[in-house]
Amino acid sequence: MTDLSTLTAEARRRDAADPRFGRPGAYLTSGIAHLNGNSLGPPRASLSGELERAVSKQWARRQVGAWFREGWLDLPRSVGDKLAVLLGAGPGQIVVAGETTSTTLFNVLTAACRLRDDRSVLLAETGAFPTDLYIAASVSTLLGRRLHVVPGTGIETFLREEGHRVAVALLAPVDFRTGERRDVAAATAGCHAAGAVTVWDLSHAAGILPVRLDGDEVDLAVGCGYKYLGGGPGAPAFAYVARRWQSRVDFPLSGWHGHAEPFALRPEFEPASGIDRARTGTPSVLGLLALNHALDPLLDVGTEALYGRNRSLAEFFLDCLEYRNPGLLSHLITPREPERRGGHLAFRVPDADAAAETLRERGVLVDARPPDLLRFAFAPLYVTHEHVVRAASGFCDLLEGLS
Amino acid sequence: MTDLSTLTAEARRRDAADPRFGRPGAYLTSGIAHLNGNSLGPPRASLSGELERAVSKQWARRQVGAWFREGWLDLPRSVGDKLAVLLGAGPGQIVVAGETTSTTLFNVLTAACRLRDDRSVLLAETGAFPTDLYIAASVSTLLGRRLHVVPGTGIETFLREEGHRVAVALLAPVDFRTGERRDVAAATAGCHAAGAVTVWDLSHAAGILPVRLDGDEVDLAVGCGYKYLGGGPGAPAFAYVARRWQSRVDFPLSGWHGHAEPFALRPEFEPASGIDRARTGTPSVLGLLALNHALDPLLDVGTEALYGRNRSLAEFFLDCLEYRNPGLLSHLITPREPERRGGHLAFRVPDADAAAETLRERGVLVDARPPDLLRFAFAPLYVTHEHVVRAASGFCDLLEGLS
Repeated sequence: MTDLSTLTAEARRRDAADPRFGRPGAYLTSGIAHLNGNSLGPPRASLSGELERAVSKQWARRQVGAWFREGWLDLPRSVGDKLAVLLGAGPGQIVVAGETTSTTLFNVLTAACRLRDDRSVLLAETGAFPTDLYIAASVSTLLGRRLHVVPGTGIETFLREEGHRVAVALLAPVDFRTGERRDVAAATAGCHAAGAVTVWDLSHAAGILPVRLDGDEVDLAVGCGYKYLGGGPGAPAFAYVARRWQSRVDFPLSGWHGHAEPFALRPEFEPASGIDRARTGTPSVLGLLALNHALDPLLDVGTEALYGRNRSLAEFFLDCLEYRNPGLLSHLITPREPERRGGHLAFRVPDADAAAETLRERGVLVDARPPDLLRFAFAPLYVTHEHVVRAASGFCDLLEGLS
Repeated sequence: MTDLSTLTAEARRRDAADPRFGRPGAYLTSGIAHLNGNSLGPPRASLSGELERAVSKQWARRQVGAWFREGWLDLPRSVGDKLAVLLGAGPGQIVVAGETTSTTLFNVLTAACRLRDDRSVLLAETGAFPTDLYIAASVSTLLGRRLHVVPGTGIETFLREEGHRVAVALLAPVDFRTGERRDVAAATAGCHAAGAVTVWDLSHAAGILPVRLDGDEVDLAVGCGYKYLGGGPGAPAFAYVARRWQSRVDFPLSGWHGHAEPFALRPEFEPASGIDRARTGTPSVLGLLALNHALDPLLDVGTEALYGRNRSLAEFFLDCLEYRNPGLLSHLITPREPERRGGHLAFRVPDADAAAETLRERGVLVDARPPDLLRFAFAPLYVTHEHVVRAASGFCDLLEGLS
C-alpha cells in the first residue's frame, strides 16, 4: 500500500499552472471534492446576487414590462445562442423553451418522427437514460410507430439490415452508466446513409466534451441544463434543430411562445420561423437566468480547454489508483483510452450506496447507481487535482478494504 | 366632472379596516397601483431572501442530497397540496410538474381524451386563451380527434345536440378578455350529462375566485402559476386529476419523475400511483420554491377573504367611475353583477396600448389587449382602495379626454 499524499505536491503544481480552473470561492462546493457534476453541479457563489437583481432590479422595477425591457422574452433564444458556442452550432439553432428534459425530448422526438412519416421504426439504445426510453415509447404509441431498443453496439447492424424502416434514431454521445463515448459524426453518418433522422441526447456531453452539432451534421438534439452546464436543480433543457430542418419541423407542444406572432393572440396556430417554433409556453425566467449565469464561466474558458482539463483530472485520478495499486483498475468499467470516454469514470463496487456514503464522510461527493456502480465526474471549473488526490485516496482505501 | 379626491378618505377608511390586505412593503410594487395581477403580479419583498436560502442553505450545503434532505423531490406534491386548499380540492390531487401552462395542458388534455377513446370530438370555446386552442388542435391531430371550437354561449346547445360525440370539453371559469364568469358546477354537470370529460383551465381563477374542484365534480384541470397566484414570470403550471380518475389517466409526458420507482431506472415505464403520475421530468426547484413562497400569504388569508376583497376593490372602482360620470360605465364589457365576474374588469377604449401607457405615466399599471381592450385586475393582497381611486381617477380623465 503506497501513500498517495506524496502526489499532493504534484497535484498542487498542476492546479497552480492554470488559474482559469479551480478558482477559490467561485463555486459553493461546501469544501467537498465535488465529483458529482454529472448529476447536479454546485452553485456559483454569485448566483444569489444574480437572482436578487432579477427580482428587485428587473421584476420589481419593470413589473410585467420586464419581458420586453429586460430581455426576458429573448432568454430562450439568447441562452440558446450561448449554448450553441459550447456545442459547435451556429446561432439561431438552439432554444431553451423552459421545459424539463423529458418533455423537451418528447417535443423534439415527435417532430423528428414526423419528418419521416413514411417509416415505421423509432430506434433507441438499451443504454439510454431510462426517461428517454419512456418518452420514446410514448411518442411511438402516439404516432403509431414501433420502438426498437437495441444495445448500443447493435445500432450499426440494425441500421444496415433494417435501416430502410428507421424513421428516427435516438442516440447519446456518452453512455450515462459506463461513461463510454460514441462517435457522433460516424453514428450520424450511419443514420443518414440509412435515410434516418438523428436525435441526440447531449445531457452527458454538454459543457464537458467538444460537441460539433453543425460539423457532424446532427439533425435534432436535446440536453439537460443541470449537469456539467451547472444550471441548478431542474434547470430547463435545451433543444437543437439544424437550420435545414427548421422550416419543416412540426412540434406537438405548440404553445403560444412558438407562434409566429404570440401577442396577436390569433385563434389559429402559425409556427414561428426558425428555432423559435421550438418554444412552447411562458418559460420560467428564474430557471433561465440561473442557467444563463452558469454558462458564463464555461464560455470564458471554452470547450477545448474544458475538455482538456477534464481529461487531465480523470487521467490523474487513474494515475493515482495505479500508483497505489494497479490491481484496483480492474474495477473500472469505463474505457481506459481518454478519447473513448465522456466526462466521468464508472467503477463496479459491491454496494454503491454504502461506498458513496463512505466517500462522503471523507469529503468526496460521487454518484451511486445502485446496486453496484459508482461514478466519478471531473467537472473542469471546480474540481482540482488536489480534490482528485483526496477522492482517489478515499476510493483506494475503500477498494482495499473490500479485498 | 366631479373630483374623485373626495373619495380618498373613504378609500383609506376601507383599507384601514382590514390589515390583512395591502400591508406596506409586503410586495415590491414600485409604488404603482398594480392592477395587472391577471398577467404578472409583483414579487414578495421576502422572495430574494427565500431564493438566497435555497441556493446557500439548501443547494450549497446539501448539494445533490438536497433533493431528499430538503424536500425538493416532494415539491411538486407539497406545492400542489397547498394549491389544493385554494382550489377546493382534497390533498393528493394537484401536482406542479415543472412545465409551462401550455405543456401541462397538453399532458392533461391528451390524458383526458384517452379516457373517452370511443368519442371523436374535443370541444373548446372561441373565447379560450389562444394557447389553449393551439394545444387543443395539436392534441386533436395527434389522437385523430376533431376539434370543435364554439362560442362559450353555444357550449350548452352543442352538448345537447352533439354531446354523444364529445370526448372532452375544455372550459375556463373566466373569459380572459371580458372577465365574464362561468358556473363551473353547472357546466361540469352539463358535460357529465352528455358523458364528456371536463378539463378546466383555471389560470384566471386560481388565487382570486372561490373554486371547488372536488365539490363541483371537475374531472381534470390545469392553471398557471404567475397570475393571481404570484409565482413570478413563467412560474410552473399545476395539474389537477380527480381521485376517481387517477388510476386510469395515461399521460403522454411519461418522464421519469412520473414513474412508480423513478430511481430504479427501469427500462419500462410504469406510472406512479395517484397524482404522482402527472409528474414529468426533473422540475425546476427555483421555479417551484418561488411559487411555494408566493402561496403562503394567499393561504394565510384564505379564498373567501381573497374573493371578498377582490369584489370590494372592483365595486369601488366602478363606484368611482359612476360617481364621476355614470356615462363612463358604457365602456365596461364585463358583466355589472359581481357574481358574474372574475377578478378583472375589461373596458373598450379606442387605443388600448396608448391608454395603458397614459395610465402608466400616472402610476397605474393595467393590461392592454390591442386593439381596444383595457383590463383592470384587483388582486387582493397588494391592491388597495386608495390605489383604486388613483386608477379610477386616471381612467376617468382618459375616458373624458376621448369624448
